[in-house]
Amino acid sequence: MKKQILAAIIIAIALPALAQETKEIKLLAPDKTRGLPLMQALDARASARALDAKPLSDQDLADLLWAAYGVNRPDGRHTAPTAKNAQDIDLYVCLPHATYLYDPANHLLKPVIATDLRPALSAGQEFVKTAPVVLLIISDYSRFRLDDTDKARFWAGMDGGIVSQNINIFCAATGLSTVPRAYMDQTIIKQLLNLTDTQIPVLNNPVGYPRR
Amino acid sequence: MKKQILAAIIIAIALPALAQETKEIKLLAPDKTRGLPLMQALDARASARALDAKPLSDQDLADLLWAAYGVNRPDGRHTAPTAKNAQDIDLYVCLPHATYLYDPANHLLKPVIATDLRPALSAGQEFVKTAPVVLLIISDYSRFRLDDTDKARFWAGMDGGIVSQNINIFCAATGLSTVPRAYMDQTIIKQLLNLTDTQIPVLNNPVGYPRR
Repeated sequence: MKKQILAAIIIAIALPALAQETKEIKLLAPDKTRGLPLMQALDARASARALDAKPLSDQDLADLLWAAYGVNRPDGRHTAPTAKNAQDIDLYVCLPHATYLYDPANHLLKPVIATDLRPALSAGQEFVKTAPVVLLIISDYSRFRLDDTDKARFWAGMDGGIVSQNINIFCAATGLSTVPRAYMDQTIIKQLLNLTDTQIPVLNNPVGYPRR
Repeated sequence: MKKQILAAIIIAIALPALAQETKEIKLLAPDKTRGLPLMQALDARASARALDAKPLSDQDLADLLWAAYGVNRPDGRHTAPTAKNAQDIDLYVCLPHATYLYDPANHLLKPVIATDLRPALSAGQEFVKTAPVVLLIISDYSRFRLDDTDKARFWAGMDGGIVSQNINIFCAATGLSTVPRAYMDQTIIKQLLNLTDTQIPVLNNPVGYPRR
C-alpha cells in the first residue's frame, strides 16, 4: 500500500513535468522594428545583476531569442556570424520549470528536460537562481571540421561571445537587464543536457526586468 | 655619391612615414544618437566583402571605434564587457599608411607603426588589402590573471568575439559593410606590432562603404 501511494505521488509530480517537457513552445513573431537606435543602446550597455523574478512577456522572450541567434535571411544565416559559417552555436533557454532548446529555423522552443538548470548555472550566485530566464550559449566545435582542437575551442569561445553580445545589446536597447557569465558547473550541465565531448558551455546570460 | 643619394631617398621616404607615425589622431566625438533601431540593425546584419576603397568619413571612423570598444561610463567601462572586467582587448586600427592603437579612455588613435598591416591581415584575400580600414582585435590574456592558460585563451576568444559583434552591428546599423575574419598571418602581425607572448590576434574586421 505504501508503495502504491509513493508511486502515485511520483507520478503526480512527474506527469505535469513530463507534459511540460514534451511540449514545444511557439514563439511570437519577432518585432523587427523595436529597440533604441544602436548607438544609444551601446551607450546604455552595462552588466546588471539586479533582476526582477517576474517572467518576461511573450513578446520580450521571442524578441530576445531572435536577437540573440535568430535567422535573419532566407538562406538560414543568423543575426550572429559563426566561424566558417559552421553555425556551431546552440542556445538553451533555461526557465524555472524546464530547459528548452531554441530552434532558430522555426523560431520555437523545443523541450529538453523538465529540470531547473539555474542552480547549476549559478556557480553560487543567488541572482542567477531567481532570474526569470537564463540563456545558455553552447558551441559544438565539431561543426568547424578542424583537425586542430585548440583552434576549434578558440573559435567556440569567439562565436559564443558574439551571441552573448547580441543578448547584451538587445537588453540595453529594450530596458532589460543582463550580464554575461563564464562561471557555471560545466560537469552537471553537460550531464543534465546529455552533451557530447565537443559541446562546450561558453557563456550564460541571466535576463530579466531591472529590479527597482 | 651613390650612397648619399640612396640615403637621401630613404630619408625622403621614411620621414613622412615617421612624421605620420608619431602623430596622434584626435577623433570626433561619437554621435551617440545615430543608427537604426537595434532590431532593424540585427535584421540587416550580414557579412559582406565587397568594400569600396574610399576612406571612411571622420565621423564614421570615430563612431565605429567608439561602438566597437569605446568607454561608455565614468568608471571607464566599455561598450563591450570583458571577462572579470579584465579589459583584455586592444583594438588596432589598420589604415593604408600606418597602424594605430585605439585609446578608448581618450578616444584617440595612438601611432604604432608606419606600416600597412593589411597584407599581413589578408591571408591572401584581396578585398582586405584594399579595405579603407581594418580593425584588428587583440586580447592580452595575461590581464585575466589566471593560472589556467587554456581558460585564459578561451576567454580571449570570447572577449574578442564580443567586440567584433559590436563592429558587425554598428556597420549593419549605419550602412557600412564588414566581415569578421579569423584567418591572418599571426607570426608577421606579432612581429610587426611587437606583441608579447600573451597577446593574441583574435579577429579582424575590414570595414568600408559597400561597393556598388
